[in-house]
Amino acid sequence: MREFFQVISIRKVLDMAGRFPLAGTEEVEVFQACGRILAKDVVSKDNVPAFARSTMDGYAVSASSTFGASEGIPAMLEVAGRVEMGTTPEFSVGPGQAALMPTGGMLPEGTDAVVMVEHTEILDDKTIEVYKSVAPLGNVLDVGDDVKKDEVVLKKGVRLRPQDLAVAASVGEPILSVYKKPIVGIVSTGDEVVSADQEPGPGQIRDMNTYALGGLCHQAGAEYRSYGIVGDDPQALRQACEKALNECDMLLVSGGSSVGARDHTIEVIEGFENSDILVHGVSISPGKPTILAKVGDKQVWGLPGHVTSAMVVFHAMVRPFIHHVAGYEGGDGVVSVPAKLARNVPSVQGRTDYVRIRLVEKDGELTAEPIFGKSGVIRTMVEADGFIQVDLNEEGLDPGTMVRVDLFEK
Amino acid sequence: MREFFQVISIRKVLDMAGRFPLAGTEEVEVFQACGRILAKDVVSKDNVPAFARSTMDGYAVSASSTFGASEGIPAMLEVAGRVEMGTTPEFSVGPGQAALMPTGGMLPEGTDAVVMVEHTEILDDKTIEVYKSVAPLGNVLDVGDDVKKDEVVLKKGVRLRPQDLAVAASVGEPILSVYKKPIVGIVSTGDEVVSADQEPGPGQIRDMNTYALGGLCHQAGAEYRSYGIVGDDPQALRQACEKALNECDMLLVSGGSSVGARDHTIEVIEGFENSDILVHGVSISPGKPTILAKVGDKQVWGLPGHVTSAMVVFHAMVRPFIHHVAGYEGGDGVVSVPAKLARNVPSVQGRTDYVRIRLVEKDGELTAEPIFGKSGVIRTMVEADGFIQVDLNEEGLDPGTMVRVDLFEK
Repeated sequence: MREFFQVISIRKVLDMAGRFPLAGTEEVEVFQACGRILAKDVVSKDNVPAFARSTMDGYAVSASSTFGASEGIPAMLEVAGRVEMGTTPEFSVGPGQAALMPTGGMLPEGTDAVVMVEHTEILDDKTIEVYKSVAPLGNVLDVGDDVKKDEVVLKKGVRLRPQDLAVAASVGEPILSVYKKPIVGIVSTGDEVVSADQEPGPGQIRDMNTYALGGLCHQAGAEYRSYGIVGDDPQALRQACEKALNECDMLLVSGGSSVGARDHTIEVIEGFENSDILVHGVSISPGKPTILAKVGDKQVWGLPGHVTSAMVVFHAMVRPFIHHVAGYEGGDGVVSVPAKLARNVPSVQGRTDYVRIRLVEKDGELTAEPIFGKSGVIRTMVEADGFIQVDLNEEGLDPGTMVRVDLFEK
Repeated sequence: MREFFQVISIRKVLDMAGRFPLAGTEEVEVFQACGRILAKDVVSKDNVPAFARSTMDGYAVSASSTFGASEGIPAMLEVAGRVEMGTTPEFSVGPGQAALMPTGGMLPEGTDAVVMVEHTEILDDKTIEVYKSVAPLGNVLDVGDDVKKDEVVLKKGVRLRPQDLAVAASVGEPILSVYKKPIVGIVSTGDEVVSADQEPGPGQIRDMNTYALGGLCHQAGAEYRSYGIVGDDPQALRQACEKALNECDMLLVSGGSSVGARDHTIEVIEGFENSDILVHGVSISPGKPTILAKVGDKQVWGLPGHVTSAMVVFHAMVRPFIHHVAGYEGGDGVVSVPAKLARNVPSVQGRTDYVRIRLVEKDGELTAEPIFGKSGVIRTMVEADGFIQVDLNEEGLDPGTMVRVDLFEK
């Protein structure tokens, strides 16, 4: 066996993300941009709305014309005109007057409020009664109420949500500059591993890692490609990795779980030109034998062979690195919830433990039930809703401790 | 104005989802299936693993050969052979013997446990010392420990996560049957509305609804297409809707916000052959003037013109209908968290109020800060993290009430 790795903390690994360059940018139509990472601030060139608009169907008035109006003593107003949608009213409204007003229409000159149609009655062609007073700017969206001119409405680095697209559209940005999705190559290794469409022989099992890691890449906003399953053969492994590195921004090599296979992985990674092994061993459980190398400008990860361990390492480290390359600046991108631990969780000081959690709600309070199980078993991941981390400095957690559960994406 | 709508509750609207047929199914490779909805249970044809496997590098033994072993009194064992990955060991291991064992290898006959390599020392070619006893099945994944033969490992109707793909792969399902993504057509209406790439004239504003609704469809797992912006002209609206209905499974018509435009929308929807207006008015705020029709087998929704209102209606009703058509059976598909209300929320009995919420964490506890604002304003949605619902029967909520916040997707 090769000399044992120098174990470092997750924090130190995460600090290395900045050594890798960001993916380039591309332009996409705002209609197609949901979920993409914005590469340039969006600044409004105008006020939105650019004119005072009604938020109701009713009558535009000077609010003062309605002061004191009530069911008992309605205000009687002369109808000075009718506002048409999408045009500037070509009349003005004086004191004691009103203009018929559709929702979204532009307020005519002389008005500063809209009386809801429900609070009015038509007396004749030219006259209405108003039964309720309205305050200035009542039922009105004033100039710039939504967005002010020169305001930064969206910041570079956000993942665009539906409402973000709406804001970009409202300020006239039909095309957005976003980061390209990083392309991740996936190689599974192991003499014992066959693909999902093969019948395993004696002593063989079907690959899980390619599929789990592909799904995780998809959720992290990356493109992903499989470069197949490679036996414990350095030559074949080097060929697969070389092809993947030529075609991708990042490479995930998972397995082999045996010492010999691990040795092959590190040897192959070291053997590339401009290869710099940044990490070989992380104080995390499961996932200790993780490798990270910089080959040229590209990331190469050596992940554990056990599928659950590989998923933990992805969650804790690969995902933040993908986010970095993808330009995402919105934090860890993980939705997490506070919950009360249902039972004790043992842990060893000096490493960060990831424990699978099933969430159960009781009386509006979330309880976190730890799921223990061997890390070669995928079922515990299927049953879990998320992870908790038990910190480097903790010796374990007592029942009743408030913990933060990082939820799996659905 | 047309006679006012018959307002019904959200619950009654949601009960109507069953009137619409599910999307068809298609086959996808398991590697590409993340996020898709499974259309058929996955049942394991075999035990996984199909043989007892080591979860560690070490030595396979009969556990009883190690009983009593300690640092002081190690057990001395004869090395009977070496297990190769991916094959059946062609030797057996007797009492007092051991076999060199890679992680993931098949246990030889006569063994039931694996001693970790860290707890052994090599004495010579044929002999090791064991410093710690191991229990039967210690460091072993036994036959069926992950998945048992004939077990349902994934249920029809789940949204496939990375770990679900791994399970499907492990039981030999390289191709999965999933539901097709529903295709949603989007039409925006309003004489005052121009698209994001146009310069609005006086009294005009840029469309937001097409973009917000497109993003929401994307998040809900649907395909979506824009059929443009139509002025308040029934003829043009009918044409756009007809085209969309021919090409899509569902249609969202949003706006126009004025009474006249609303009348056009309902008239056009009623005018289609086999049109059945199921809903015209929902006891929800914002979003009361919502329309739902069944045209042939397809859904046609008339959504409010205000972008925030349209988003609330999508969240409360359209999204569950998309999930129904998409075959999703995993509940409402919304991640929600309990939080403590920071201030009072006024509400009117007899309707369900949707209030935008900003979440703030203090001392491990989540606080829900209501964001109030006119529903034509998109900024309040950009600042919010989710919604709370104030129920039909509530007259409002007091500060300190525990509420459930439905989080926006990110």
